[in-house]
Amino acid sequence: MRAHTTRIKVRYAETDQMGVVHHASFYPWYEVARTDFLEDVVASYKDIEDMGLLLPVVNSHCEHKKPAKYGDEVTITSTIKELNRVKMVLSYEVYRYDDLIATGYTTHAFVDKTFNVVNVEKAFPMIYERLVACL
Amino acid sequence: MRAHTTRIKVRYAETDQMGVVHHASFYPWYEVARTDFLEDVVASYKDIEDMGLLLPVVNSHCEHKKPAKYGDEVTITSTIKELNRVKMVLSYEVYRYDDLIATGYTTHAFVDKTFNVVNVEKAFPMIYERLVACL
Amino acid sequence: MRAHTTRIKVRYAETDQMGVVHHASFYPWYEVARTDFLEDVVASYKDIEDMGLLLPVVNSHCEHKKPAKYGDEVTITSTIKELNRVKMVLSYEVYRYDDLIATGYTTHAFVDKTFNVVNVEKAFPMIYERLVACL
Amino acid sequence: MRAHTTRIKVRYAETDQMGVVHHASFYPWYEVARTDFLEDVVASYKDIEDMGLLLPVVNSHCEHKKPAKYGDEVTITSTIKELNRVKMVLSYEVYRYDDLIATGYTTHAFVDKTFNVVNVEKAFPMIYERLVACL
Repeated sequence: MRAHTTRIKVRYAETDQMGVVHHASFYPWYEVARTDFLEDVVASYKDIEDMGLLLPVVNSHCEHKKPAKYGDEVTITSTIKELNRVKMVLSYEVYRYDDLIATGYTTHAFVDKTFNVVNVEKAFPMIYERLVACL
Repeated sequence: MRAHTTRIKVRYAETDQMGVVHHASFYPWYEVARTDFLEDVVASYKDIEDMGLLLPVVNSHCEHKKPAKYGDEVTITSTIKELNRVKMVLSYEVYRYDDLIATGYTTHAFVDKTFNVVNVEKAFPMIYERLVACL
Repeated sequence: MRAHTTRIKVRYAETDQMGVVHHASFYPWYEVARTDFLEDVVASYKDIEDMGLLLPVVNSHCEHKKPAKYGDEVTITSTIKELNRVKMVLSYEVYRYDDLIATGYTTHAFVDKTFNVVNVEKAFPMIYERLVACL
Repeated sequence: MRAHTTRIKVRYAETDQMGVVHHASFYPWYEVARTDFLEDVVASYKDIEDMGLLLPVVNSHCEHKKPAKYGDEVTITSTIKELNRVKMVLSYEVYRYDDLIATGYTTHAFVDKTFNVVNVEKAFPMIYERLVACL
């Protein structure tokens, strides 16, 4: 199973008045981790979109174990949890040093520019093959 | 079961280059819906925090059925799905007119200002009673 | 001079760990105020974009006199400060009750969908006329 | 004059339906650039806040010359433009390769944790000295 790790330094704007990183801020982090992962194993997400394949988010989930704080640098490990011809689930683990502080996942449909579902194995066999290689 | 409905007009800043509302933008919407709900049934979230009770997000989840777009005005219905002495789950339904476009939930711990878990029934009986009344 | 007033309730996600609204959060507020203003005097910004006219931000500015806080409801008054055939400056005043807590402005170019400057008086005379009427 | 350069990779969440980076997204970028700059020349902003000195934003400004796009990696150069005992102005230049695409500045008051203005030269002489050295 192929994993990719992304480093993120907490931005001040991502905190809230509770003095911790706002829960919604984790989703753009997962997005950064996911695009780094895809760039590493397939192609840049910009190029994937330019080829005509979009990966809209069908659902998103995040579990918080400990708060992230301003001053923290976290690492996010991304893996493909599930994959078939029409969708993909990516899984994320957020660490502060060796401390697992959050986990999450996002499910993505494979669609074209008009938001119609595409069979990624048929329409984009090279992309599909590279994704399968990560399982 | 007591429900509360909040109206939200999509902000341009909430869209992304896919031409739809970015998935992470739904979480601040749920937060707006949740604080409106709490203000309606318990007290303003500001007053709840001032009393010494914080409701940090333990997990958050969102399912997208159809995209939301700039120009849309959506309504979000909030209900309490689960409640016990140390945590609460709120559930959200996002409608564009009669069309259910997304659902979600968030789980909240009851903690004090030092982030220690509190038994809300003992520490804040009035708040607990009003929350129970929504079930 | 025609003005429009928009009410905004501070969102928790808009605060930061300083316990006040993050300065960057004022710009989406100005955007909400601006689109309400335009909808009132011209047409919805969605319809303006659908007609082929975009109003990208050329510059943006904000002055803070007092912090905005969670629990506040602010009102934003928008006016057109300058207007010519290729650009427009909008001005904003943010009040908490009678207290002016922030001011700002944004300058917008008139461009088409390919980001080429358009002479709005020639290309969209009806829009131009309605904007002129606000001065 | 001492400068510091920060690299930022555009996040998908920072784009809007115009297909470019939303103007409000530049302010958290300036904040990242500013905290990198301060960490380089003074101390981490977290440590500065822990010492009891806050730098709230008094005003912020951004000029856009060309749009930033998803897929871009930009570099931001920060310098101190003005400094006295009670406030500081930082200036930013955003480049895509050799192309200057945006400029901006932010003014910061020196205040304590109760938001009272402090004379930074008297209260934090070491910090003041290091800032002066950047002019």
